[in-house]
Amino acid sequence: MGGTRQQILAMMIEKGDGYVSGEEISRKLGLSRTAVWKHIEELRREGYQIEARQRSGYRLVFRPDRILQEEIACHLSTRSFGRVLRTLKTVDSTQKVAHQWAREGAPEGAAVIAEEQTAGRGRLGRSWHSPPGSGIWMSLILRPPIPIARAPQLTLMASVGIARALIDMTHLPVRIKWPNDLLIRDKKVCGILTELRGEQDRVHYAVLGAGINVNIDGEAWPPDLKGKVTSLSAEAGRAFRRSPLIAAMLKELEAIYEKYLEQGFSAVHKEWERLSGILGRPVKVRNASGEVSGIARGLNGDGALLLDTEEGLIPIYSAEIIEGCQSRSF
Amino acid sequence: MGGTRQQILAMMIEKGDGYVSGEEISRKLGLSRTAVWKHIEELRREGYQIEARQRSGYRLVFRPDRILQEEIACHLSTRSFGRVLRTLKTVDSTQKVAHQWAREGAPEGAAVIAEEQTAGRGRLGRSWHSPPGSGIWMSLILRPPIPIARAPQLTLMASVGIARALIDMTHLPVRIKWPNDLLIRDKKVCGILTELRGEQDRVHYAVLGAGINVNIDGEAWPPDLKGKVTSLSAEAGRAFRRSPLIAAMLKELEAIYEKYLEQGFSAVHKEWERLSGILGRPVKVRNASGEVSGIARGLNGDGALLLDTEEGLIPIYSAEIIEGCQSRSF
Repeated sequence: MGGTRQQILAMMIEKGDGYVSGEEISRKLGLSRTAVWKHIEELRREGYQIEARQRSGYRLVFRPDRILQEEIACHLSTRSFGRVLRTLKTVDSTQKVAHQWAREGAPEGAAVIAEEQTAGRGRLGRSWHSPPGSGIWMSLILRPPIPIARAPQLTLMASVGIARALIDMTHLPVRIKWPNDLLIRDKKVCGILTELRGEQDRVHYAVLGAGINVNIDGEAWPPDLKGKVTSLSAEAGRAFRRSPLIAAMLKELEAIYEKYLEQGFSAVHKEWERLSGILGRPVKVRNASGEVSGIARGLNGDGALLLDTEEGLIPIYSAEIIEGCQSRSF
Repeated sequence: MGGTRQQILAMMIEKGDGYVSGEEISRKLGLSRTAVWKHIEELRREGYQIEARQRSGYRLVFRPDRILQEEIACHLSTRSFGRVLRTLKTVDSTQKVAHQWAREGAPEGAAVIAEEQTAGRGRLGRSWHSPPGSGIWMSLILRPPIPIARAPQLTLMASVGIARALIDMTHLPVRIKWPNDLLIRDKKVCGILTELRGEQDRVHYAVLGAGINVNIDGEAWPPDLKGKVTSLSAEAGRAFRRSPLIAAMLKELEAIYEKYLEQGFSAVHKEWERLSGILGRPVKVRNASGEVSGIARGLNGDGALLLDTEEGLIPIYSAEIIEGCQSRSF
């Protein structure tokens, strides 16, 4: 959709249930009445229901819940995040597209969002179920001036930003599961994947991927995921429009990212612990060195998970929680 | 150059100053005498001087110091490093080619080596002077199963491997300057650049780049580099063939990489300190947090440089030495 069509859509959205006259559109945008009509037809093909009434003009009757730049732009209040945006109907992986774009010079805050991923990526090479029209599959390009050793902090930072936005927009009890998931009542609603390219002591760029299950019916999950995953709609008992959610996420991500760059990880630390669903709980983690059990106590200054074990407090830099999060409610 | 031509070249190299009969070549490789002759002509076009004598056969009179798979393969004794190899006459950056190749699935140990780079990359986005025919500009693809926080150790590991190979082949006093240079008598002879792509807790692939000044005349440097850089030939007073050097580097890199994966950074630590040119010397380092002065004491278990300062021993994870290495001889 081009800039003119976006402006026409924005004018109709602004009027709410009221009419925008064709004459006003054509005057403000310098278009002929026929050109206005052609744009309206194009919007209808995109799924918008637009009533046209003689002498009153055009009125938006129904806006489809579609991932479109125009819809997102209507809600966006960021400085740079999402201001440069690619929205796609279907893509193999938004991460892959964002990597390519970052290599070609995409600015910080550029985002790729798709209606559907045919080969969505999760952590550690796993696939990510991302059916069409029902989630937010987004990749955000960052260029933080940090050494790569600090890059895992970006995932923790993003967890806080996205959790804040989801809580604000849905009032659901979203909690963070270390290191990269968001849960509602112990079921996964969002996964975060931070990928990056860098050299020994600096990140060239990072691609922050987030997959959020928005409007997915409890029955719609593949058998292996059932009982482990959920969606915002399943938990709230109502559907959510995705564009305001995306705009809210970008807003919170931008805010916490700017704080993180100014103040370092301390800007994330306390709020992460407040939103964490595992502190004080017994967990078992597994990584390349083996398994460790203990009580999750918090994060250290670097972002490692502190486990209270029989041998004392151990910082876990990289691992997976294999027990302790699916067992009971928060 | 194809596999057949490589075999013909290898047969001639094996004979040293002796002759290989055309009949022997055609029998062993199942070629017509005309086909053998065509391959010989092709080798001559590549710069090889080949004497052809009736009844005796072919004899290699002069081998150009060229970066060719055949030349490198003759010397290679690795298990996997350099076994998959791309040699290029000219390229913008071997790092760039290797990244692309790694994304397409190049195996661990695959290497890209060029005669010339038109846009060679150094650390922190700097350019790297890499004139044609006079150096080794190489990028090696690694797929280490380590978290990205440990990736800076790859540079330290590579420093040891390359220093070993250069000392072994040239007997020159090569020393390591933390974090990523090799020096001879306080002048830079080699720079190492480790770039990687990964996610929060694992490296997808790393591209280990090394630029080695082999046969560069002291007068040939651009004015801004004069006095700061040197080459193996300038220090030894003689030229070096690059293919045996490349094979030796790949051999030492493979050996130390395998030890590193088995034993962790302790496999690198002591030898790094032994080869270091800065331990016990006063240095000043600069990074994003500012400048620190102290006596370089060694590395900690993670690979950070330990500086003995007025406030005690400080680990430096990422910085640049701005004073203390160009000041006096080792």
